[in-house]
Formats: sequence, structure tokens, C-alpha cells
Amino acid sequence: MTSRPRVLVLGGGFAGIGAARKLGGADVDVVLVDRHDYHTFQPLLYQLATGLLETTAVGHSLRDLVKDQDNAVIHKAPITGIDLDAKEVSFDGLAPETYDYLVLALGAEVTFFGTEGAAEHAFPMYTMAHALRLKDHVLERWEAADKDADLVEDGALNVVVVGGGPTGVETAGALAELYRDNFARDYPGISQEKARIVLVEAGDEIFAMFKPNLQKYAREALEKRTVEVVTGARVHSISPTRVTLASGEVIPAHTLVWGAGLQGNSLVRSLGIELQHGDRIAVGPDLELPGHPGVFVVGDIAVITDARTGQALPQLGSVALQSGEHAGESIARRVAGKATKPFSYRDKGTMAAIGRNAAVVQMLGGRTMKGHKAQFAWRTVHLALLPTNEDRAKAVVDWAGSELTHQRVGRISVGPDE
Amino acid sequence: MTSRPRVLVLGGGFAGIGAARKLGGADVDVVLVDRHDYHTFQPLLYQLATGLLETTAVGHSLRDLVKDQDNAVIHKAPITGIDLDAKEVSFDGLAPETYDYLVLALGAEVTFFGTEGAAEHAFPMYTMAHALRLKDHVLERWEAADKDADLVEDGALNVVVVGGGPTGVETAGALAELYRDNFARDYPGISQEKARIVLVEAGDEIFAMFKPNLQKYAREALEKRTVEVVTGARVHSISPTRVTLASGEVIPAHTLVWGAGLQGNSLVRSLGIELQHGDRIAVGPDLELPGHPGVFVVGDIAVITDARTGQALPQLGSVALQSGEHAGESIARRVAGKATKPFSYRDKGTMAAIGRNAAVVQMLGGRTMKGHKAQFAWRTVHLALLPTNEDRAKAVVDWAGSELTHQRVGRISVGPDE
Repeated sequence: MTSRPRVLVLGGGFAGIGAARKLGGADVDVVLVDRHDYHTFQPLLYQLATGLLETTAVGHSLRDLVKDQDNAVIHKAPITGIDLDAKEVSFDGLAPETYDYLVLALGAEVTFFGTEGAAEHAFPMYTMAHALRLKDHVLERWEAADKDADLVEDGALNVVVVGGGPTGVETAGALAELYRDNFARDYPGISQEKARIVLVEAGDEIFAMFKPNLQKYAREALEKRTVEVVTGARVHSISPTRVTLASGEVIPAHTLVWGAGLQGNSLVRSLGIELQHGDRIAVGPDLELPGHPGVFVVGDIAVITDARTGQALPQLGSVALQSGEHAGESIARRVAGKATKPFSYRDKGTMAAIGRNAAVVQMLGGRTMKGHKAQFAWRTVHLALLPTNEDRAKAVVDWAGSELTHQRVGRISVGPDE
Repeated sequence: MTSRPRVLVLGGGFAGIGAARKLGGADVDVVLVDRHDYHTFQPLLYQLATGLLETTAVGHSLRDLVKDQDNAVIHKAPITGIDLDAKEVSFDGLAPETYDYLVLALGAEVTFFGTEGAAEHAFPMYTMAHALRLKDHVLERWEAADKDADLVEDGALNVVVVGGGPTGVETAGALAELYRDNFARDYPGISQEKARIVLVEAGDEIFAMFKPNLQKYAREALEKRTVEVVTGARVHSISPTRVTLASGEVIPAHTLVWGAGLQGNSLVRSLGIELQHGDRIAVGPDLELPGHPGVFVVGDIAVITDARTGQALPQLGSVALQSGEHAGESIARRVAGKATKPFSYRDKGTMAAIGRNAAVVQMLGGRTMKGHKAQFAWRTVHLALLPTNEDRAKAVVDWAGSELTHQRVGRISVGPDE
């Protein structure tokens, strides 16, 4: 038994990693638990799903990220229960852990809003497994259609992407480039007209979080890439081969990508605390959970208000990372007998990539960028988010390679052998 | 219907790819069928299994490899039957294909020689799926042992590698570096003494195909990497947690890697032709199947005699590639009304890598190299075997990165979500 304060970090995403690494120099024992042995670089999942990047460019060994930190250990285990009063967390296949400080960095999970057939047939895009499942499915449909023209006519190659936010737009744009640049060459016998990509957004415009000029730019950039953008439309139900809109329109498509709808990790519902919209948790200025000293809530599950601007902050990777780091610093200060500080966000901007040389950036202040310049900013920010210099080097090489060759080396399907 | 001769290539390994690409300029229609949508770079499978390389560095899109060849199409389908008299091949999920010329490049498959429990519990190393399955299993055992010390005592981290050929030696050496360099840091709480790597070879020495000085070097290089080399020993039976040798000795180990035993693809048994030892097929000087004009047999399933030296050639990637290319050339000559030429092998040497800066090379002539110099030669030859310049660039980057950092970015386990 050690007498040092025990810090339990739940979740190995941007927020959890930020907290664990900031505690490197602190006189504490850090235990980080995640259900995977890797950190997922979520902003690049759509590039994994479309064969542009490989798993190791998106998933990074958690142990690697704390390897220089002798006060931190990693455990891979699903979390089964959190008892804030007993200060104890239970796991599947791992003895319960007690804590002096807790960092809740559980992230969000996908919700289908009860859309009929979605849970069974939709392809969400929030985890590495999601991205690989989507990639393998799309490749399988092209292989099958290449052998059976009837499948092409049945819409086997059509994809409906639901949600006009960054996930939906980035996935739709990347699928269009995969189809028109790569599959057009891989499957010369199949007419690209028979392979539609339809982006469906319930609101009046895609990219609701962006200014009108960026919304217009994004729609044009998608349409230039032959993505059909349908706004003001809701998906009513999904079958393995058909998507039915609320209007009654039926789109033949064997693939529906679900880029809409996140809610707080369902574990938070059992915490016995008041939850905000979408099962998220409101926190104090220093990100502490009101009424539970020593418990800090960060990342996507937290409703965070910027101390300087008073604005509620969006659910972004950079907000997650910075809030996690702040929680780590706050715990270090507590342990050292100092007071915590309120959290204020250093804005890196909200950004999304529609495709090659087509991205949008909007700062909280309101400044916007698009095109080449925005893509450069997008890459700069995402490289900064990458956990190690090696990752940064690899991503630059991969991006440079794909720009030169338009190749997508990842468009292979490596399943178990028959 | 086209009136051009139809060339059917069965198998997308080195031999099949070599044949298909050599036919690029020929006035024929080429159909290449493989059960995967990728070409497997088998010499690097052990690097995939130990997290040094990623799937896309070992598997390359078959369609990508013939994308500049408008006379070639790729189909992904398991082969179910070959009728040499009817000149027709049947597939699972694909209409039967007739041919004017056939290139049999089916490769080998693993045989366990009836070793008890091997089919159920051993981890062979011949396909990408094998390599990923081994990697995930080893990672899972370490994760489990990290939570349960009893597992460590039960030998959960011990690995027995069967077979002192290149596959066994390279896998054992790479596992040792993964254990001692990476897992030692990833799992500081686990004593490396509790994680044994035992290489079991039935013969008197490992690397039977190499000269004694290289055998001695390889054994010393393995032992320097803490691999226990046991020669003159056979595996009698395998259970999920124990390996029993013919001597009766029982080695506690939850992982047995099967690096021994290949035989010709079982499809060849149904061809109704005489087979050599290990279900391989003897071919004529131009690699044609005696009695079956227009049928060429290449790669691991062929017993090839060098036209110049009269020596039987080993089952090597470079022999497979060159024999496949020769078959492609022979068919092109036939179609052009020219006579075929006998095949003679341009020796690149037999080589294997024991670990970082430790490799061996032996030319057919008898010249040998070891250490740094051999590793350089190993890389040169393997880079030459890689299908595209992009692949070569990626491999160099990956190797350079791992040399600098000793990192293994692939040591994550990306399974489907719970």
C-alpha cells in the first residue's frame, strides 16, 4: 500500500489522456482505465473508414502514452459501476478500484433517437470498430456488386449518410473521393452513376454550427464531389437495403452511415446526479462536480462553461484535451495544497474537412477560413492533438502520400480466414 | 465476348501477381482470382504479428497492383474446383470461368502433421489473419496477466514457437524484442523472467537450410535475445495452456506458434495429376504442367528445377515471383506464336532476420553474410519484392521509425466493440 493520493481516470480519450499526462510530475498514483488498450484519435475515424489511414494512425497504445510516467498504470477493462459515495469503481474482469480523486472522462455514445431499424442496420461512426465495420461493409458490397449486376441495380453501392455535422460531412466527402477516385479505377465495369452518396440533414442547412458562408461553401464542395445533399429531411426507418425518409421517399441503399446523435456515456445515468440535456454533466468553473469534491468531469460528457467568456463550450477534441489537462492540473494543485483555478478555453477553432483541399474553420470570435488555407489549419490543429511526435510524422507521411498518389492503401478487408 | 485468349490466374501471391503483371502488354484477357482482395507480403507477416508493421504494409490491394493494366480484372472468391480437362474453374459466389491459359499460383497451406490439439490451439503464421490472431491473443494474455498474477504463474505469457526455419526464428526473435523492449515498459509490474520464449526444432540445429556458421550465429543471436532454443525435440500435443514434448516434458504456455509444416494447397489433390512430396506439382523446364498444354504451375506449389544449375529451387518469395513472371512471359510468347524458354532463377539468396541488426544471408553459390550487412541485404531484397514504390517508401519509414524509437505502434488490439 502506498500512502500517496490515488487518482482514478476513467476513459482514455483526449480528456482522460490530458488529465493523466498532466499528473506526470505530481505526487500521486494514477490509474487510467479504458475498455480498449488504445487511445482513439476520433477526428480521423472517417479517414480510417475510407482507407486513407490505418488503424495505428488512429489508435495509439495507451501504455505508450504514459510510458515515461512511473506514477501511472493502465488497465483495459469495461467499467460496470461508479459509486461516488463509496468512492469506488467496479469493472468487468478487474478488481474494484477506490480513489481519492476521480476524473470522469467517459466520453459520449451513439444514440439513434429510436429510429426504426437503426440499431440493427445503421453504421455509426464513433469508434475504431465502427469505422472498420463500415469500411469492410462497403468493400464487401462493391465486391459482391462486381459479380452480380442485379445488386448494383438494387442500390448495393448507394450510401446514405445521416447528419450534416462534421462526422456526416467528412464521411460523405471522403466516401465520394474513395468512390470517384479509387473504386472508379478498381471496378471499371461499374458505372459510378449507380453508386450514389446521399447526405441527409434534418435541419435547413448542413454545418449548423458554422456561419452561412461556410455552410454554402461546404454544400458546394460536397456537390462538386457528387454528394447529393438533402436538407430538411428526417430518416424514418432503415432496412438492410432501403432507407425511408419521413416524407415517405424511399432511397435504395445497402449502407446507412449514422453521423447524427451523441449522448453522454450511459454510465452517468447511474451516478445519481442531475443530468443536463443529452445525459451530460454540468460542472463548476474548475470542472469539479458540485457536491462531490475531488471528482472532476471533463470532455464530451461535461457541460463546460468558459470562465472568461461565460459561453458553453462545444464538444470538440481540443476542448476535451484542454479540460482534461486542466483537471489534471487542478488535482496536482489540490495535492500540493494550492487552490484550483477556473478553466478557460484557448480556442483552436471549430473545423471540418469536406475533402482534399476543402475544409472550413471558424474561430469562436467569428473569424472563418475555407479551402486550402482551412485544410492547412485543420491539419495543424489535428497534428497538435496527436499524442506523440512519431504519430505526427506518420500522419504527415500518410497525408502527403495520398495527396501525391490519391491512393487509399487501406481499402483492403482483413477479416478472419474462412 | 472477346476473341482474345483468356488467361486465368489462380492466386494473388508473389507468383500470381508476377504472372498477371507480365501479361500487361499481351493481347490477352487476364482474370486473377484470390480469396482475398489483397496481396499478402508473407515475409513480413512476423512483423505484423509483433506490432512492428501495420496491415497495409503487409497486405496490398490486388486491384491497385493491376490498375494500369486494362486487360486484367480481379475477382475475390474462394476457388471450389479446377477441371483441367474442361478447362474450367468453379468458385464460391462467382460464375465458373473457362480459360485458354491457366496459371496455378495457389501457394501452400499449413499442415500440423496430425499433432494432437494443434488444429484447435496452435497459432499458425501463414496468412494476415493468422498474424493478427496471434498478435491479439498475445496482447490479451498480457492484459489478463496484468490483472491476475496467477495467470503469470500458469505460464500465460510463455510462448512456444515450433519450427527452426525462417518463420519460427523470425517470429521468436521479434516476440523477444516485443517482450523485452516494449512489454517490459508497458507492464512494469510483471517480471520478464515469467515470460519465456521457447523455440522448439525437431532437427539437430535451427536453420537447416543454412551453413553451420549461420546456424551458430542465429542460435547465439536468439539466445542473446533470451529466446530458449531447444533442438532435437518434437511437440507431442498441445492444450490451451500446456505444450507437451515427445520427451514427456511439459512446458506451461498459453501460446504455441506453429512455424513448421507447409504443404501444397489442398485443391491440387483434386486435379487428378501425380503429386510430389508435400502435395507439390513437378513442372517442365518452362513451368508448364506436363500433359496439359497452356497450364503453368508456379510458386510454392511447384517443384521447380533450375534450367541452368539443374538444382531444385527452394520455396522462396523471389522464386515465386520470378517463376510467376516467367509463366506470364511464356504465355505472352505462346500467344505471339513464339516458343517458350526454360526458366532459370536469378538468385537473390536465402535470408532470414533474427532481430534488429541481426540477419543471415546465403547465396546458392554458398556465400554467406550475417549481422548488419545481412540485415541491409535482407531489406534490399524485400524492398525489391514490394509491389509498389509507395510500399517501399512506407516500409522504409516504418523500419527507420522503429529503429529510432524501438516503438511498435501496432501493439494494439482492435476488435469489434463489445
